[in-house]
Amino acid sequence: MTDAQAPAGAAKDALIGMEDLDALSDRDAPFVQLFGFKTERIGFGEATIRLPYNKDHIRPGGTISGPAMMALADWAVYVAVMGAIGPVDLAVTTNLNINFLRKPAERDLIAEARLIKLGRRLAVGDVSIHPEGDDEMCAHVTATYSIPPQT
Amino acid sequence: MTDAQAPAGAAKDALIGMEDLDALSDRDAPFVQLFGFKTERIGFGEATIRLPYNKDHIRPGGTISGPAMMALADWAVYVAVMGAIGPVDLAVTTNLNINFLRKPAERDLIAEARLIKLGRRLAVGDVSIHPEGDDEMCAHVTATYSIPPQT
Amino acid sequence: MTDAQAPAGAAKDALIGMEDLDALSDRDAPFVQLFGFKTERIGFGEATIRLPYNKDHIRPGGTISGPAMMALADWAVYVAVMGAIGPVDLAVTTNLNINFLRKPAERDLIAEARLIKLGRRLAVGDVSIHPEGDDEMCAHVTATYSIPPQT
Amino acid sequence: MTDAQAPAGAAKDALIGMEDLDALSDRDAPFVQLFGFKTERIGFGEATIRLPYNKDHIRPGGTISGPAMMALADWAVYVAVMGAIGPVDLAVTTNLNINFLRKPAERDLIAEARLIKLGRRLAVGDVSIHPEGDDEMCAHVTATYSIPPQT
Repeated sequence: MTDAQAPAGAAKDALIGMEDLDALSDRDAPFVQLFGFKTERIGFGEATIRLPYNKDHIRPGGTISGPAMMALADWAVYVAVMGAIGPVDLAVTTNLNINFLRKPAERDLIAEARLIKLGRRLAVGDVSIHPEGDDEMCAHVTATYSIPPQT
Repeated sequence: MTDAQAPAGAAKDALIGMEDLDALSDRDAPFVQLFGFKTERIGFGEATIRLPYNKDHIRPGGTISGPAMMALADWAVYVAVMGAIGPVDLAVTTNLNINFLRKPAERDLIAEARLIKLGRRLAVGDVSIHPEGDDEMCAHVTATYSIPPQT
Repeated sequence: MTDAQAPAGAAKDALIGMEDLDALSDRDAPFVQLFGFKTERIGFGEATIRLPYNKDHIRPGGTISGPAMMALADWAVYVAVMGAIGPVDLAVTTNLNINFLRKPAERDLIAEARLIKLGRRLAVGDVSIHPEGDDEMCAHVTATYSIPPQT
Repeated sequence: MTDAQAPAGAAKDALIGMEDLDALSDRDAPFVQLFGFKTERIGFGEATIRLPYNKDHIRPGGTISGPAMMALADWAVYVAVMGAIGPVDLAVTTNLNINFLRKPAERDLIAEARLIKLGRRLAVGDVSIHPEGDDEMCAHVTATYSIPPQT
């Protein structure tokens, strides 16, 4: 994980491109289209994903629902893993822990994921979710993915 | 929690009825309709919710997606809380932890939630998710709800 | 996990004996002696461990400290894993999630662990902790162990 | 949390001093002496705590045990909470989630805690644990404390 934690200027390139990622999400992740997630950035072990503000996924009061944030964080870690190991469609989440911190403003949400561990069998990502233009996190997530043995 | 943990025969009645619950979900929980959750049972601090098998929410290979299971568990604990304190639309999830245990069979999923703590400020629920007709859990969840001060 | 979830009457035997377990704990787990954990029962994927009430590990008010409960749960899952796969001293915890539910009575604490997943690479255990003679859980834990490749 | 997240140069002072903290730990936290935790720094919603390398708390292979790291993180969040609200001895952990990321080097461990939420009823802290002189995290923790109503 030295690489994934390297300063931005020294970051290694992502091992997956946007086209391969789109192909994976079309095939593997029905909720990506359901929620309209947009990949803003992929790096080696890093990803930034946007959840557009959408009347279909809000709670009364206008805030985006918890399940939408959980789906967003799960997908952000998946993209960060793909950025570090390349397209592997069998990586599966084994654990996800989310703390909801405050009611988000009525805006797009941005998830910033980075891997804090990249092992041969497990990868662990840390995600902060915040409304666009607002540094205060509305939710924090850690998620573990199991990486299939490479043949 | 003595009550919520009482044997089935002695269970206290739920403090919310199906009609009030439907009204809450129409108003508060857009994902309930999105996923088609069906409330099979509400008790005092207990709930059983069904996620119908639906081609829109599966991953390749035919299994229901992780985010659908997280939404299901979150909703099941919410219903269990409503069953114990009555309709209160400001209860919010503060923490959710999910362990994905195995690939579920291609069937409806059933979430069984029960509260393991019911305090004045916090309620904690334990949820097992399994495919219909199969006792093996495919996911296990604990979730904490913050209960608003009652006026 | 069919086996580990089988009714008590049909339980498979543990794959580790008390002597091997004691040898492992003397060698691997300094906190077992520190806290005085006592193994009450080992089954296939199941374990019951006692934390004796001890003035050295209490908080003011006489309740056993949170860290003592976390250590107890971690050890209980380890013993349950050993019961299912035999003595393997390289199994390591990858994730532990604990919910503290209520202040325990001033008594010994009992941890009941059972595996809810036993895979080739990961095992997941569910633990309830309650004071002796009191069915109300004071803490609930899930923990994941990584199992080393068997040669 | 604007304050707790302010850049270091602008940080508000801690609302507890070292003497009050020592008094609290002597009275409330038996494991602080057990493990020999040393408070390196307290800020408003921030704390840095050292776990001295000690033969009594290691696993074979020379690495510090998981339970010692869980106790360390729990204490670090407690100190960060005290730094933000002043000495309150009834704050209790309600949830703690830890991911063990890699085997730490045989050195003192340093826990860096910061609050990511400071509400009237709940505070949530994020903790990274790393060996002294090594930036790679060996464990990552989030923990929630319940704050008693202030009279």
